Amino acid sequence: MNRLPSTVTSAVRCSSVNSSLRRIAMSSAQNAKVLTMDNLNPAVKTMEYAVRGPLVIRAVNLEKELAQGTEKPFKNVIKANIGDAHAMGQAPITFIRQVLACVSYPALLESPDFPTDVKEHAKVILGGCGGHSVGAYSQSTGIDVIRQHVAEYIERRDGGIKSDPEDILLSGGASESIRNVLKLFINRENPKKTGVMVPIPQYPLYSATIEEFGLGQVGYFLDESNNWGLDQAELERSYQESLEEFDTKVIVIINPGNPTGQVLSRENIEQIIKFAHKHNLFIMADEVYQDNVYAEGCAFHSFKKVLTDMGEPFSKMELASFHSVSKGYMGECGMRGGYVELMNMDKDVYVDFKKMISAKLCSTILGQVVIDCVVNPPKQGEPSHDQWLEEKTAVLKSLKERATIVKQAYGALEGITCNPVQGAMYCFPKLHLPAKAVEKAKSLGQAPDFFYAMQLLESTGVCIVPGSGFGQRDGTYHFRTTILPQPALMKDMMERFTGFHNKFMKEYA
Amino acid sequence: MNRLPSTVTSAVRCSSVNSSLRRIAMSSAQNAKVLTMDNLNPAVKTMEYAVRGPLVIRAVNLEKELAQGTEKPFKNVIKANIGDAHAMGQAPITFIRQVLACVSYPALLESPDFPTDVKEHAKVILGGCGGHSVGAYSQSTGIDVIRQHVAEYIERRDGGIKSDPEDILLSGGASESIRNVLKLFINRENPKKTGVMVPIPQYPLYSATIEEFGLGQVGYFLDESNNWGLDQAELERSYQESLEEFDTKVIVIINPGNPTGQVLSRENIEQIIKFAHKHNLFIMADEVYQDNVYAEGCAFHSFKKVLTDMGEPFSKMELASFHSVSKGYMGECGMRGGYVELMNMDKDVYVDFKKMISAKLCSTILGQVVIDCVVNPPKQGEPSHDQWLEEKTAVLKSLKERATIVKQAYGALEGITCNPVQGAMYCFPKLHLPAKAVEKAKSLGQAPDFFYAMQLLESTGVCIVPGSGFGQRDGTYHFRTTILPQPALMKDMMERFTGFHNKFMKEYA
Repeated sequence: MNRLPSTVTSAVRCSSVNSSLRRIAMSSAQNAKVLTMDNLNPAVKTMEYAVRGPLVIRAVNLEKELAQGTEKPFKNVIKANIGDAHAMGQAPITFIRQVLACVSYPALLESPDFPTDVKEHAKVILGGCGGHSVGAYSQSTGIDVIRQHVAEYIERRDGGIKSDPEDILLSGGASESIRNVLKLFINRENPKKTGVMVPIPQYPLYSATIEEFGLGQVGYFLDESNNWGLDQAELERSYQESLEEFDTKVIVIINPGNPTGQVLSRENIEQIIKFAHKHNLFIMADEVYQDNVYAEGCAFHSFKKVLTDMGEPFSKMELASFHSVSKGYMGECGMRGGYVELMNMDKDVYVDFKKMISAKLCSTILGQVVIDCVVNPPKQGEPSHDQWLEEKTAVLKSLKERATIVKQAYGALEGITCNPVQGAMYCFPKLHLPAKAVEKAKSLGQAPDFFYAMQLLESTGVCIVPGSGFGQRDGTYHFRTTILPQPALMKDMMERFTGFHNKFMKEYA
Repeated sequence: MNRLPSTVTSAVRCSSVNSSLRRIAMSSAQNAKVLTMDNLNPAVKTMEYAVRGPLVIRAVNLEKELAQGTEKPFKNVIKANIGDAHAMGQAPITFIRQVLACVSYPALLESPDFPTDVKEHAKVILGGCGGHSVGAYSQSTGIDVIRQHVAEYIERRDGGIKSDPEDILLSGGASESIRNVLKLFINRENPKKTGVMVPIPQYPLYSATIEEFGLGQVGYFLDESNNWGLDQAELERSYQESLEEFDTKVIVIINPGNPTGQVLSRENIEQIIKFAHKHNLFIMADEVYQDNVYAEGCAFHSFKKVLTDMGEPFSKMELASFHSVSKGYMGECGMRGGYVELMNMDKDVYVDFKKMISAKLCSTILGQVVIDCVVNPPKQGEPSHDQWLEEKTAVLKSLKERATIVKQAYGALEGITCNPVQGAMYCFPKLHLPAKAVEKAKSLGQAPDFFYAMQLLESTGVCIVPGSGFGQRDGTYHFRTTILPQPALMKDMMERFTGFHNKFMKEYA
């Protein structure tokens, strides 16, 4: 992100010379390191993950400095860099945590302090565990009764369209499933890398994994002037241009969008499906924000439902849809629960897919338990239902309010334009940086929006992620901020931000 | 494992022809699958993971058939294929589960039913979590206070040798850390693959990961006649022979041994360290069974302590040591808690390593909590101490007894010889299969010990893993069984096994 491509290339070119020199040196001095920057996995060297990148490392260090009493122009660091709701003060959902307590320590099943439906949920899950213990491994695919509940949840969500528990694989967050599916497409016997179409801006999990796996990133630009919608012509351009270098087989869609916060219309989804069908692409639908839709007139449409409704040949297309317990109203990021539902995958491929994930044994059982709580919440009339609904509704209502506040606050600043936050948890405003600021950044070898974000962090303690970490059209600058700080903290953050921004714009005017 | 190498090779050779044909077919029929066995990641096709392989898949299906009422010559399936203590009836340690309940549902911190030291542990951990919630992400390296406790634990274990929390990375089981370290050695710019020395027999996580990552497996045979010890000459042979094909840079040692159950002597460890130093190898010490040592006169010596005690130049060598909450006395496999301690790693490499793991966000917080309970158990005088010690001691005593019983029981059978189980959780007996059984297996295209194990499963419901899944000297046959079934189940298993074995040996005599 703050390394320029030319630097990377020359570093790679130097490595063969360096390692020869090193080998000579080593024969005389056996204490040279075995693993050095000369022979380290090149993909590890070049990959970037902005959401946890240099800005965040600096933010963590600033926190430590503050804790040690170092004087700073701010009293605390506000991490608006990552969708981590609990860290920003959101309270957990009681039902989820009570079930977790009961499965972890089953003596609580005898306690009068826990509602009967919580205990029933816990007993059903324990009945699916080896030795009735969450300390046993599950099958690599996950606990069967939880896969069953996921399938029932998807059927309810999609108006009764059939979901087969056999097509559902539980994983450590959605990230692990996304990585697993992408891994299937590595093919070093093919002289062309497998091309994976990803939106630009995109969530850096994709760019980092594509880099690590030696796949080919094929970016298609979202249309900022049309609220980050997808444009058929742009998809076509991106695909056609990729073919010279890549064997393009996959398209990733993030809906609701990360970092861009748009919610795709049903028509837009149909266009994408037709495009994917025309070019025989495997669809990866990142739908982890399916519960996070705020804007009037917007609704979440799953790719599965839309392509099923479209009928053949579309309903026979290969699709992987991902979901997570880290987002939505629960925000249980630390639990690492997620799943993928696979549609129409070749049967033999699926057998080998399951063999591949078996080498990782299984995902965390307690993460699987949280998935169960999310897909199989208390029903109307059960003792936990009202509290659960009240807590869920309050979180989503508050997120909706903050989505509006954040858009308005940034949009009101000079030098910033901002699309509405229709869904997800992020705002991705455009920064109209003065030429002098751009020059200054370039003189430091930094991307201009990285420079801006680092200045903001150092002077206010507010941590955001520069647009260059997600990708953007050349010559444009953005940043991603979450809408997660609770209202009082959000007010504090906006005050710090506004003060910095106005000063910065004046300084470089 | 039950695929012969020649089959694999020809399948690979066919694929380029098949995919050309397929491309022609596809242009006329757009409904062909995008992802097929022709273009699936070749490493995914060829990798094998015996501990979860075809035998285990069959065992799971047999369980389902039994549940549906199908008649079988046995009433249940006994899974002695995997080190999964709780699934085999071992009870969880109360202290661990109480802490888990309290951090999951902090309202329990007010409950009079939980000991004060449990609550104190829970509070310290929550203090290290974002927003004081186990639902927040941690840094990718893990929660700082838990890394600190791990370092203190290692210092106590190794008689005061310094451990720096900064060198400790928490992960989803030891497996994830092992995969992360191996990933550093992928280098496709080097015309030779990086060679990784692994013991034969080995734990198939290594062979599967080496295959998946495109590294080179360099097997060194353990000496069965010397209780699976390591022989300097064999290490040297293996290394020298590898150099034609590979750039060998890593040696993996599993101590106590899996699947072989040996515990290395201090002298043996010193020899290995000297060997690794001579050839400038990075040492990966898989020490997840460090608490599982049963035999009189045996003790666990960590590679860190031995190489530190040996002084320079050895104490400057690069070492990665792995530990897990899945084994030991706690057996909390489903929690997915583990860590790696890195010694003497190049500083820049370590920065990039941490960048690499950041793309996976963080390991499960509740798994990290279990690590904390294991490395920071109740102290003498604290309310939970006596019960904790009693439970821990009872598990280890019972495992020790079963280690002896299993060795004696298998060793008493005709056609089986068996080394003592000094440590870990497995017995790896040698099967002296009659020539007719070997012929029969080969006529079915199966490895002879796979054939034996499948026959055992079908007729008795006992699930073991054939030696061919771990590697063994040509013409020898083995199987791995765990010592984990509780005593009554163990007796049942041995009766079924003995009946089958005697009949099998007679049939093929």
